Formats: sequence, C-alpha cells, structure tokens
Amino acid sequence: MRLSDLGELGLLARIESILSIPETKRLADPASAAGRVLVGVGDDAAAVDLGDGRVLLLSCDSMVEGVHFVPGASPPDTIGFRAMAAALSDIAAMGGAPAWALVTLAIRSDCDAAFAEELIRGARAAAERDGAVIVGGDCVSAPRETGIHVSVVGEGRRDGLLLRSAAKAGEVVMVTGTLGDSAAGLAVLQGKASLDAEATSFLTDRHLLPTPRIAAGAILAEHEALGAAIDVSDGLVRDAGHIGERSRVGIELRAERVPISAECRRAADAMRRPALHFALGGGEDYELLFTVRADAAEEVRAALLQRAQLNATVVGEVAAGHGVTVVDESGQPIEGLPAGWNHFRGVR
Amino acid sequence: MRLSDLGELGLLARIESILSIPETKRLADPASAAGRVLVGVGDDAAAVDLGDGRVLLLSCDSMVEGVHFVPGASPPDTIGFRAMAAALSDIAAMGGAPAWALVTLAIRSDCDAAFAEELIRGARAAAERDGAVIVGGDCVSAPRETGIHVSVVGEGRRDGLLLRSAAKAGEVVMVTGTLGDSAAGLAVLQGKASLDAEATSFLTDRHLLPTPRIAAGAILAEHEALGAAIDVSDGLVRDAGHIGERSRVGIELRAERVPISAECRRAADAMRRPALHFALGGGEDYELLFTVRADAAEEVRAALLQRAQLNATVVGEVAAGHGVTVVDESGQPIEGLPAGWNHFRGVR
Repeated sequence: MRLSDLGELGLLARIESILSIPETKRLADPASAAGRVLVGVGDDAAAVDLGDGRVLLLSCDSMVEGVHFVPGASPPDTIGFRAMAAALSDIAAMGGAPAWALVTLAIRSDCDAAFAEELIRGARAAAERDGAVIVGGDCVSAPRETGIHVSVVGEGRRDGLLLRSAAKAGEVVMVTGTLGDSAAGLAVLQGKASLDAEATSFLTDRHLLPTPRIAAGAILAEHEALGAAIDVSDGLVRDAGHIGERSRVGIELRAERVPISAECRRAADAMRRPALHFALGGGEDYELLFTVRADAAEEVRAALLQRAQLNATVVGEVAAGHGVTVVDESGQPIEGLPAGWNHFRGVR
Repeated sequence: MRLSDLGELGLLARIESILSIPETKRLADPASAAGRVLVGVGDDAAAVDLGDGRVLLLSCDSMVEGVHFVPGASPPDTIGFRAMAAALSDIAAMGGAPAWALVTLAIRSDCDAAFAEELIRGARAAAERDGAVIVGGDCVSAPRETGIHVSVVGEGRRDGLLLRSAAKAGEVVMVTGTLGDSAAGLAVLQGKASLDAEATSFLTDRHLLPTPRIAAGAILAEHEALGAAIDVSDGLVRDAGHIGERSRVGIELRAERVPISAECRRAADAMRRPALHFALGGGEDYELLFTVRADAAEEVRAALLQRAQLNATVVGEVAAGHGVTVVDESGQPIEGLPAGWNHFRGVR
C-alpha cells in the first residue's frame, strides 16, 4: 500500500505496533534498556527511568524542504529555529526541562554553505533560549532536498510526567495562549493577507519563531490535579483527538471559548475565512493543551499566569465516549471543521 | 561558497565553530545543560554528566537515498540496520553501552508502506542485538528522497570515556577485526566481483549488517593504558587522521600489518585492485581503532580476544608531528593511497 493511501496516521500506527515493547520483556529485566522505558512510542516524547527519581525525555522533529519549508520563502535561521522549537515543545508537553540536542543536516551539495550555517544558528538560538545546548549531530549530503533533523534529551521527575493517556471524565480541557496565530502567520507570509507592521510581525513571529511552553509544562507537572497534556502541533481538534484516543475518552470543545488573538482575527477577516478555522485546524502553535480536575482549573490558571506570565483558558471538557466534538454556544455540534495536517495525504 | 567546493570537512569545521561552548559559559553554571557537557561536537558521540559518576552518550547517523543507499539494490531492512549500527558504533567508540534510540523516517509519499516498515524493522533488529530499544521517533513526508535518521542515547562512566583526543606519543595504534570487508562487500553487491557463496555472504553481511564493537569498547574503557579511540567509519587513514588531529599527534601506519580478511583479498584480486586500498580507504567497517601504551598492547589484545572473542592488531604507532603516514616494510612512505569518502565532494 502506498503511503499516500495509508496516510501518516496509518503508517504511524503500523510503526507503533512494530516498536511496542512486550510487557513480558520489560518485566524480564527491569534494569535493561527495555525494562527502564516508562513511555515509549505514542506520546509527545519518550521517557526512560534513570533510577533515582529522575527520568530522561527523548523527542525529535524534522523539517524537510518542500514540506515544512520552501527555501527563500523564510529566513534559513527560522527553519532551524522551528525544528528545534518543535522538539523542545515535546519536552515541555511531558513536563520536562530540555537539556541536550543533536542536529543532523541533510544538505543538497549545490546548497550555499551559508544556508547550512544559518540552519544551525537558528537551531542553536532556539535551544539557548530554553537553556538547552546542541552537543553534536551529523552532516550528510542529500541529492535533491535539504532537511534538518533535531533530537532533544530533556530531564524530568518520575512523579511529574505529563502524559496524553491520563485524561479522566469530569476534567476540563484547557489551553495556554492563543491558537491559530501560526497558521495566520503562514498565510501572511504567503501574501494571502496584508496587515499593518505590528500585526504582521506578531503573527509571522508566532509562525517562524515559536515559543515552547517550557515553564508552563513544569508548573503543570507539579500539580496533583493535572490529567493529560499534549502540545498543539497538529491543530487543536487533532491534538485533542490524540488525548481522547490515548485516554479512551471523548473531548467536547466549546467553539466560543477557543482563545484567538485579535491579530489572528484580523488576518482571517482579511481572507474572508472564519478565525475559528485557523484556531481549530492550524497547527504549530506549540501551546499546551491539557486536562485538569474541574475544581482545580482556576488554581492552575492563576499559577500559569503568575509564574509563567501565560494565560490559560478552559475550552471544553472530558466526556464519555470517544472522538472530538466541537459545539456552539447552544451545545449543538458544529460540522465541517478543519481537522489538521496529514503529511502524506497533503490535505487539511 | 557552495558545499561542493567547501566539502564535508569544511562545513563540519564551520558548524563545530558555531556550536563550540565557551569555557566561561560552562564554568558560569556547572549545573546547567551547558555546564554538564563533557564532550561536545567533534568526537564519535557527545558526553554529558549525570552527576553521579554516570554519563550519557549521544550519537546520531543518517542514511539518505542516492547517497547511502539505492532502493532495490539492497533489502530495505538492511538500510535501517546499517543506520542504527552506525549510531551504536559511535557509542562503542566512546566506551559506552547503547540504551535508547529515536528513529525518524523521511519518506516519499509514493513509497510503499512495506518499505518504510522494513526500514524500522531493520533498525529495531540492530538495536535489539546490542541491548538497545527504539523508544520513539517521527515520520515525515519527503517529496523526492527517502532518508532514515537515527539518534542513540548510551550510558557510560565518567572515568571510562574513550576520546579521539587522548593519543600520546609512545603509544601504538591498534585496530579490531579486519578492514576493507565492507567496501569489498559493496563491490560484490554492485557486481564488480564474483566470489563463491560463502565469501559473498561474509563480505555482503559485513557491509549490510555491520557489527558495532560494543563489548570491545567497554573493555577498552576499563583499561588504564588506553589512549584515544574512534570507530572506523570513514576509512582507516581518515579515521586515524581524526585521532591525529584531535590529539595533535602524527600517526604512522604500517601497510603490511593492516588486517585484511582472505575474502577481502579475493574480492580485490578479482577486481585487480590492491586489497590494501579497500582496507585503508573503505569505510563502514565499524571496527575500533585505538591507541594504547606500547607495554600494554599485548594485555589489551589478550583481553579483547578472551572477553569479546575479537582479534586486535598493532597497525602502527603514535608519532611526533601531524598527519597520517602509511609506510611499507622498509619504513618508506607509500604515496597515492585512497583517503576516504567525502560526501559533498563525492570523491574518494
């Protein structure tokens, strides 16, 4: 079966099945590498046990020419920055602190050396901003397309891991920051909407220089009332779906509560499209989406605001059943909404 | 400047300079990620301090279509196997034990799903053989060429790190196993030499299913008389050059002592080429090249044979000056020898 038919999720499911570690193998030797895996394939990052309360978190992300970036359409350092930020964000979504990174460049030999250097400089800038450091990597030639592949090792506490699988009925669903800005920023970069300099700068920065929510993840990891967490990389609906699937619950999102910036609304207006579509389907915002016991939502919101200077909004609740439903103010499901990006099918 | 002019080593030197961590930054906060880097860019793997005598080792390797493999020319599982084995070998060359791996597939969407699955199965097989486990990764589409990108996290002891930079005058240079088999195996696969089934199988396995020298690396890491170490991935002359450069010493290799298998000799004979050229310039053997105090060479050789069932041979010595010299039996330098593979220049 061709990948274009199977789709990214179909392939990921097959690979996950190949890589699943049998429980018997984990238990057979708890001191082995397999025995120390706490979280394997299927969450934002893998988690392995260091044996003294500490865990290592392992994540990776890639940007490939023609899929994730077009040379010339954005400064090369921002390509490296985004790849690193995406991998850092996965560490944040597990509640950890990023520490060390590897960067592999697969570079066309007709490429300018300065382009390759800018990719690295951008990745380094993103790492440094969050206290991480690039300690190695590789450089290989690629005949026809350039790619940057980032791996990040983070540190966390065994008793403070944030998982996709931990949502429970009765919890509310919250999200940090605003959603849709990255997708709106991409549209502005592509010339689909023209805004004033300030709004342009805000939205394009949200796309090109995203901010992983490291401090917020650490605050959430400490909180006893937290349920599941994930970073918004595929889009709100799809990432909520990942939580729902892993936790075996349904997710109900309230359209009118989804936090959307004024700048995103203006870009959407200029394109005569509903801002909600950007917020629900546009990915790469790298905000944190999480569930929390309803009675603790206000306390968590206040902690994020006070300690990470970050707004968080209740956007829905964990429900029985499965799947993600987006409802309007009267509680009626809204149909025909964008789902998210599928790399192999190439549709939204 | 185009990469084809600058070359792989030129680009690596620039990147290393971008990524070097200033000593002041390391010392400013020893508890920070930067402060805990023991070995950064420029060795087989990076090493970071876990604070209790343990270190983490981080390595990565990539195989890109059209550069490292041609689909159809070798079974897809061997492509994944080789990529993983190369990254594991880097951990061996630091004296560590590989534990956890991430694998990213960049896959053409017109690719068959079974091909992608075989890449993963091969990588898993290589990891499992050495006690490591794949805990995560990513799958992205690539418009025009498939690649597999592997990162490995290994564990070691702070007092048992093998470095490229530790060679000292007065030491001898040793190498495990035999050299040139992988290059000869590739030639056999390409139909350049025809041998009997047994020799064909030996050489092609050495190319397609290489064996990282994990146990040997651990034995070397324990030995107080060890100098520098590296794995033979670029070819003997070039990898000896890496030790020489990092240790600021010269390396003199004795051509007649370089260990060459009977099978490699027969392949070379069939192609009317000197077997020595395969052994000196052919890479991807993943043997360990190391320096050791001359009076301890025999003891180390015996330990490798007894505990890792692996031959090791003295092939030269650490000398004053710089650069790698290959000499004949009378001590005269041999000129016109192959150096190794340069990905961007595409020449040997």
